[in-house]
Amino acid sequence: MSRWTPDAAGRLLKAALTLFDERGYEATTVVEIAEAAGLTKRTFFRYFADKREVLFMGSALLQDKWVTAVRDAPPQAGAMEAVDVGLDAVAELFTDRHPLARVRARIIVANSGLQERELIKLAKLADALAAALRARGVADPAAELAAQTGVTVFHSAFGRWVKQDDPEALRRLMDEALADLRTVVAG
Amino acid sequence: MSRWTPDAAGRLLKAALTLFDERGYEATTVVEIAEAAGLTKRTFFRYFADKREVLFMGSALLQDKWVTAVRDAPPQAGAMEAVDVGLDAVAELFTDRHPLARVRARIIVANSGLQERELIKLAKLADALAAALRARGVADPAAELAAQTGVTVFHSAFGRWVKQDDPEALRRLMDEALADLRTVVAG
Repeated sequence: MSRWTPDAAGRLLKAALTLFDERGYEATTVVEIAEAAGLTKRTFFRYFADKREVLFMGSALLQDKWVTAVRDAPPQAGAMEAVDVGLDAVAELFTDRHPLARVRARIIVANSGLQERELIKLAKLADALAAALRARGVADPAAELAAQTGVTVFHSAFGRWVKQDDPEALRRLMDEALADLRTVVAG
Repeated sequence: MSRWTPDAAGRLLKAALTLFDERGYEATTVVEIAEAAGLTKRTFFRYFADKREVLFMGSALLQDKWVTAVRDAPPQAGAMEAVDVGLDAVAELFTDRHPLARVRARIIVANSGLQERELIKLAKLADALAAALRARGVADPAAELAAQTGVTVFHSAFGRWVKQDDPEALRRLMDEALADLRTVVAG
């Protein structure tokens, strides 16, 4: 039907975030998002199952980048080191997306259903990282614990990153969170 | 209407776990659970909003015990130490419930909606523990990281505990998980 539309998913994301932020998530419809992006409802549904999934398009990309980086980390890297190598790829992925990430964070925090979805995505991310570590020969419980700790560090640093103004700060905030976690667990 | 029924909640829990385990969670109705417990549907709804909540009656108790223990930990205890003191209370709470916990774990693992509910309860538990640590004067991010690490240790150890036969093993498995986590994050 419609012609090929360059970066339709990105345009739908920006339109959705703007509308969710201005009018509220619940009050915004798929038709309004598509219209604001200059696209049809039909095109919307080619990319997303529903309006909620627009907010989680980044989760699959995040997981893919991180898992790939863990898989490709130097063979001699330990479990936590491989997870940490992956955080470089994650920081790189998000740095250009700071303005969108900040708006998205405001939308998620205002809606308990979206917060729950976010938690579930983070748990699936930890599972995928643990599987990638096992594939490197890391045994459980180390694989599971390193993966979960990596997600804890990411989540804590990301929460700080969206609350401050510097897009470049994510990797530094991750380093600080990991250092803080080491201090905390050392007692 | 009905007379006071001793330990109605406990009887409903046992009946529900047995039926969920035998017939499947989806296939079991509230009426069947109430009947198997020798109670009425009306009594069921006095204790639980729906059949799912029967499986999560322990979550509130777990959170209450752990948060109280963190609050009452010696004033000089650090963040992770206070969380760890709380694990004594948690281990004590669950030791007598090993047979029920094992059946419950089988039911949860077979249903993705229940797994998601479990993740959300664990995230709320981490939030409550972080709040209890802040009330002790622990600043963020240490409060948040110690709380999340405590939940990671609990979750990992609990998963092992329900897969083995010794009801008394929970506290030891928690100690091992915390030691493993320390080794992992030290790199």
